[in-house]
Amino acid sequence: MKIQPEKTIKEPHITLVGAGPGDVDLITLKGVKALQTANVVLYDALVNEEMLGFAPGDAIKVYVGKRSGDHTYSQDAVNKLMVDYAINYGHVVRLKGGDPFVFGRGFEELEYAASYSIPAQVIPGISSSISVPGLQHIPVTHRGTSESFWVVTGTTASGKVSGDVYDAAKSKATVVVLMGLHKLAEIADIFKKEDKNKLPAAIIQNGSTSNEKVVLGIVDTIAELAEENKISSPALIVFGEVVALHPLFQPIKEFYDIVAEG
Amino acid sequence: MKIQPEKTIKEPHITLVGAGPGDVDLITLKGVKALQTANVVLYDALVNEEMLGFAPGDAIKVYVGKRSGDHTYSQDAVNKLMVDYAINYGHVVRLKGGDPFVFGRGFEELEYAASYSIPAQVIPGISSSISVPGLQHIPVTHRGTSESFWVVTGTTASGKVSGDVYDAAKSKATVVVLMGLHKLAEIADIFKKEDKNKLPAAIIQNGSTSNEKVVLGIVDTIAELAEENKISSPALIVFGEVVALHPLFQPIKEFYDIVAEG
Repeated sequence: MKIQPEKTIKEPHITLVGAGPGDVDLITLKGVKALQTANVVLYDALVNEEMLGFAPGDAIKVYVGKRSGDHTYSQDAVNKLMVDYAINYGHVVRLKGGDPFVFGRGFEELEYAASYSIPAQVIPGISSSISVPGLQHIPVTHRGTSESFWVVTGTTASGKVSGDVYDAAKSKATVVVLMGLHKLAEIADIFKKEDKNKLPAAIIQNGSTSNEKVVLGIVDTIAELAEENKISSPALIVFGEVVALHPLFQPIKEFYDIVAEG
Repeated sequence: MKIQPEKTIKEPHITLVGAGPGDVDLITLKGVKALQTANVVLYDALVNEEMLGFAPGDAIKVYVGKRSGDHTYSQDAVNKLMVDYAINYGHVVRLKGGDPFVFGRGFEELEYAASYSIPAQVIPGISSSISVPGLQHIPVTHRGTSESFWVVTGTTASGKVSGDVYDAAKSKATVVVLMGLHKLAEIADIFKKEDKNKLPAAIIQNGSTSNEKVVLGIVDTIAELAEENKISSPALIVFGEVVALHPLFQPIKEFYDIVAEG
């Protein structure tokens, strides 16, 4: 770690900033202000790199990206980098996709900072779980249709589908599954076991970006449709009657109504 | 409705903008940009009025606030105002607390706009459900503690506690109840029936603002603590082991551990 003799070493501190789902304009003003005072930015794979432009030109920008299967940096390595940079350079912004606490392991980073007595604050981000369906005009809640929503990860630490998916499939909540694409067939089967074969379902890839792709179907068809349409990560899955509110769902509904009658 | 002869009447369009939980800096850049081109802003009770400063000085700003029990404007009246203003003035920004689709009735506004063939778009906001616990360093998910979170309204259209609260109390999810303060004792009882008397619980009032107040306890004590601490709306309730991660929860935990041993 180099010492910068021409600069005053600043008090170490860390800000976890939620970068939102991808669109550069979906960061908060507070997030932008934090970036403007950053000495170092550590950013994830799902962060829009245009946001690095909010940080000073001479700030150090380090990609610590993780995608499924890509273990560039372990969580331990990220924690250590974060603290090392804070001690040596001052203000570290840890820029994370979505919100830091929605399957973002943000709390582990807070704990690690605390173990070195480095002050840390959190700036929430727009979580894809709510915003990505919303941008497609799929509301996670809607009077008379859904009084709650349940956000679950498809990929747990153990590699198995979370037990919470089994409970969620039983519920009346809108169910949003993050990081579930690789388990989609298995997850759809869990809903089928609850006799929810005709429940509307959507998959949205790259939500909020210019590469956004959406697939609409029902529990019975969604895994096949995802494959046909070559959906890849990052993608989220929504199960629930609210999916039927999507403007393009009507023809699907009519098709299944006809099938049901026939 | 007055006609403005000196101005070109613009194409009517509507933008639903999520204003976030209260802190003026927790609006998105995209929300600010929408406000900057607004001819009219219709805003709710839970919106920070400082945000109106992002709109042009000559934009019309109309308070259409609704809080529990305060029926200044019905949803129908808001819908009609929104469309009337769009037809007469051009760009209407409908500025809503939190995210437009998290118990915000945003979809009803989209449907109403569509029934008049007025184009409408949605700009997500920071939902209090995730961000308000997060700002208190209570993560809605955390490895080994919570693999999902379930967001429920405490106040349904019928006035009864949502059936989803009963299901949520059975689950392993972090449960976040919005607009549930007036039903807190009843909601805590639902958790008690599931033998979750010792489950950590938090209430956060005015999250993200300078008037923020937090109360930490367990299912058995939370309703009493809310009363003792004179918690009032807006407030949200969090039930789940993640609440125990709050830096001030340790003494509560030790107290109950001692009680349990004794």
